[in-house]
Formats: sequence, C-alpha cells, structure tokens
Amino acid sequence: MSLLVVGSVAFDAIETPFGKTDKIIGGAASYISLAASYFTKQSKLVAVVGEDFPNEFIQTLESKGVNTEGLQIKQGEKSFFWSGKYHTDMNSRDTLVTELNVLGNFDPIIPDSYQDCEYLMLGNLTPAVQQTVINRLTKRPKLIVMDTMNFWMEIALDDLKKTIAMVDVLTINDEEARQLSGEYSLVKAAAKIQSMGPKYLIIKKGENGALLFHDKEVFFAPALPLEEVFDPTGAGDTFAGGFIGYLAKTNDISFNNMKNAIICGSAMASFCVEKFGTERIMDLTDEELNKRIVAFSSLIKFDIASM
Amino acid sequence: MSLLVVGSVAFDAIETPFGKTDKIIGGAASYISLAASYFTKQSKLVAVVGEDFPNEFIQTLESKGVNTEGLQIKQGEKSFFWSGKYHTDMNSRDTLVTELNVLGNFDPIIPDSYQDCEYLMLGNLTPAVQQTVINRLTKRPKLIVMDTMNFWMEIALDDLKKTIAMVDVLTINDEEARQLSGEYSLVKAAAKIQSMGPKYLIIKKGENGALLFHDKEVFFAPALPLEEVFDPTGAGDTFAGGFIGYLAKTNDISFNNMKNAIICGSAMASFCVEKFGTERIMDLTDEELNKRIVAFSSLIKFDIASM
Repeated sequence: MSLLVVGSVAFDAIETPFGKTDKIIGGAASYISLAASYFTKQSKLVAVVGEDFPNEFIQTLESKGVNTEGLQIKQGEKSFFWSGKYHTDMNSRDTLVTELNVLGNFDPIIPDSYQDCEYLMLGNLTPAVQQTVINRLTKRPKLIVMDTMNFWMEIALDDLKKTIAMVDVLTINDEEARQLSGEYSLVKAAAKIQSMGPKYLIIKKGENGALLFHDKEVFFAPALPLEEVFDPTGAGDTFAGGFIGYLAKTNDISFNNMKNAIICGSAMASFCVEKFGTERIMDLTDEELNKRIVAFSSLIKFDIASM
Repeated sequence: MSLLVVGSVAFDAIETPFGKTDKIIGGAASYISLAASYFTKQSKLVAVVGEDFPNEFIQTLESKGVNTEGLQIKQGEKSFFWSGKYHTDMNSRDTLVTELNVLGNFDPIIPDSYQDCEYLMLGNLTPAVQQTVINRLTKRPKLIVMDTMNFWMEIALDDLKKTIAMVDVLTINDEEARQLSGEYSLVKAAAKIQSMGPKYLIIKKGENGALLFHDKEVFFAPALPLEEVFDPTGAGDTFAGGFIGYLAKTNDISFNNMKNAIICGSAMASFCVEKFGTERIMDLTDEELNKRIVAFSSLIKFDIASM
C-alpha cells in the first residue's frame, strides 16, 4: 500500500568519538524514506529543501521508488542544517548549530496524486505542521504514525497534545515518555500517553531496544549488541521507516504484525548506526537484511516454558 | 545436583522513593539461597553472622532446603550491616552506612559434608575470600559462578583478576564490564573479559535486561516492564540465585540451557523488586513463577522470519 512520508530533508554535520563529517545528507524524512524503500516502492515524500540541496540525492530517492513530487525546492533559500557532537557514551549529544532556513516557514503542500495514501508517517516536525498534513488529507489514512521529541514538549505542548490525539501510533524515546506523562515507570507512562489518544505507543530506548504498548499488552524488541556504534544519528527515523515500511508492505495493522514491523525497524536501525549518516542504509542487500532478522530471532530465543 | 552458596548474610536498611525500612534481612547469600530454593532443595550455605542475627530466618532457610551447617554464628559480634538510599530513578543509590562487623575477618570454612557440591555460586565478597573457597574444595565443582562489583576493581584488582581466572561464569553489571575491560562497547568488553578466564559472561543491565556472552554467541533476556520498581536491592543476587538454581536442578550447563537459566533468574528478579528486601521472594507459588515465565515468552515473541 502507498505510504506518505512527511519530515525534514536536510544537511547534518556530525562529530562522534570515531570521526567527523562535513555537511552530509540528513533529516528525518531522508532516513524514513530510505529505510521504507526496502519494503515498499510506493512511498511519496512531502518535504522542503533549498537550492543548495543536491539533485543527486533526490534522484537516488526516485530510483528507490520514492515519489518526490511533493518535495519543494525553494530557489534562493538554504536547506535546514543541523550540527551536533556526541559524547563518549553516544547516548547524549550537544547541538552545535541549528539553522532552520527553509524549514522555518514550511507549508506542507500535498500533491493531488498523494491523496490516496493508506499509510502516513509524520517525521519529527513542528506539531502544527504535522497537524496541517493530517487536515489536508481528504481521506484519513488507515494508519497514522507520528514521531516527535522533547523540544516540542517544551515550546509547543498544547499543539503537540492536539496532534498526538489525532494519530494511531506515537513513537518517542524513554525520557520523552517520562516527560510527556509525568510518570517515571514506563508502564504507567504508556498508559497515560495512550489515554491522550494514540492506541499504540512505541518507546524507543536506543541501545536498550524498544517497547510497543497497546491496551494492556506489551512487546519488547531488543537492540542488537554491536561491536561499535559509529553514529546514532537517524537511528530513530530509520527505525520508524522500517516499521511503517513493513506495515505498508504487508497492509496488516494488527498488534501481532506490528511486532514484526518493530523487528524490521530495529534491524534497519542496527545498520544505520554502523556508519555515518545515511551511508549504511543506502545499498543493503536482501541477504544482509534477512541475516539480521535471523540474528534478532536467535538473540532472544529460549525454550523454557515453565520452571 | 547440590549447590554451594557463599556470600554475605546480613542486615540492610533501605530507603526508596516509596518508603523506608528498619533493619531487615539482606546480604547476597540470603537472596541467592532463597531464589535458588525454588529450583533445588540441595543447597548448602557458607556465610557468617553475629549473635544479633535472628534464628527465625535461619530456620526459614532450613525449611526451604538450605543446609546452614556452614553458617557461622559469632558470639559477641555483630552481623554485617548496610544502609542505602535510592535516587528517584532507582538506577543509582547512595550508601549511608557500611558496618563490616563479622565480615571483616570472614574465614569461609567449608564443612566436610559440603565437599560433594557440583555447583558453586560465589556471591559478591572480597575476591581473596572467594578464591579461598575455591581452593578449599577438594574437587573442582562442575560449574563455578562468581558475582562481583566495582568496589573490588578499585581496591583489589589483582586479587579480583586472579579469582576471575578461576571461574566459569562471571556476572557483573554493564558499568562494571566497561570498567573492568576498559572498553565502552559491551561486545568488545565481553570479548576482553572472556580472555581473562571465564568462558561465560553475564552482563546485567537492570531494567534493561541481561546479556549472556560465550565465544562469539550472545543471548539477551529482557527485564519485564513493571508498573513499579519498589526496591531494587538484591535483584542482582536474586537473578544469580535463579540462574544457578535452575542449572543445578537441570544439571545441564550447555549454552542453550544457560539461556533458560537466565530467564529463570530474570523472572525471580522481577519478583524481588516488587517489595522491600526479600519479602516478595519468601513465598512464591509455582503458579506465580510459571505465569512469569510465560510473560517473558510473550513479551518478546514475534513470527517474522525474513523481510
């Protein structure tokens, strides 16, 4: 089924304990689109870049089945730029530069040809913009997944809550779940956030895996233990892309199939962190992907049924 | 098979965000013995207490099949006492009081009737004392499991390394694995620690589960997401008790069976944290235990085999 992806397409400059990059391709929607392209060739992108953005990457997306008709290119303007430096533990980072540029007044125009999308992935953006996207769709998608971050909890909480109430699946990290709910226990936090609207909540815990909550049910997917996490940038977006891509491919939004989708998202994210930026998720083979799914199975497999 | 447990039997006074206790029963060997008693009735305890220690708890251990012949009771002396206060996140704590008392010159005497033990669990103690226990056994046990902590890395690293080299399974937490190995990546840390001697390494990550490493293989067991973690004291020891208890019961030390043992340890630990001290693991029913094993299975179950 077709998938609409909305989010930033941008430049990043990243420094980790392993090295640093010049301006490279970044942005939530870049990672989401790339990751989803391994599952569906029917995705459509809504985003905005400046005239400085390389046409080559847009062509790459097109070659991977991503429709870029909704990618606005603003002449005379510059693309969103973020620069950050990770600490030794890779779980925290300092933002060095944030230049909003074209993202400052992003008006998410939905091409008519996009109106049939059954799946909607709202990458991290101003909650008001995410809401505008939902309102501009003539037919509500079968599933709306939304990613957000603590920044919006601090400066646009009311907007954020209104937007959250309109979606089916919310993805946030553990600290953000605690901040949004005011509960320290993730089980209690999940119950509170579900009462705000989303029937499904995914709490991302980085190298400690991810939890999927729905009603009284919970599913946990570990992160693969890796020799080295080279660059965590985009891992959450790549996870989201694998998740929604698998759901769009299988067109099954049951809780059980969401578990599989989370494994796909986790597998994609495990590749993402192995190199800088989008590098590692540009050209994965089916064999590599399937090997990693098997690695997840064997990582957690045990056969005891009772004590 | 019979199991020898060596470690502290002591008093704790605990403060968590949920309340505080007076002096209650604590000590690594108390938790280990209680947890293991759900799997084997053939365990034997070596420890030391003062005359202030309640006979009632010793009787409780005996009633659960724990042989206390090797529990020394020092007249005129006091039991080890630790007091601590947990921070809001429950992942860190401040030690308020440490009174070594009888533990200051603990000489671990092994009764003759203990010499046939096939399984040895060395709870956290001075590495020199742990080593003495191994040296005093006339026949090497089939499996030696050792728990330790960062404190010994700081004040007795050489002794610690010598003792580690003598055991089969080492259990430490993630920060301790990093400290001991000098590696941040847990995969690299595990390889380095295995090269120090233990063929198996368990890295405990608290609410983020546990990893078992052996050669190039790795197994991950999640922690159950709980509504409330009431008191984490003794969770690591309870985990170790469930782990070694299950191995002693099944008498199978294959990597695959160790996975099951880790699930049993995790299940026991998930009970331990629900109440203060040893309270929750005093009288569990088979039904409660088996329900929790099922909860672990369903928490991580997914059915995708390839993308």
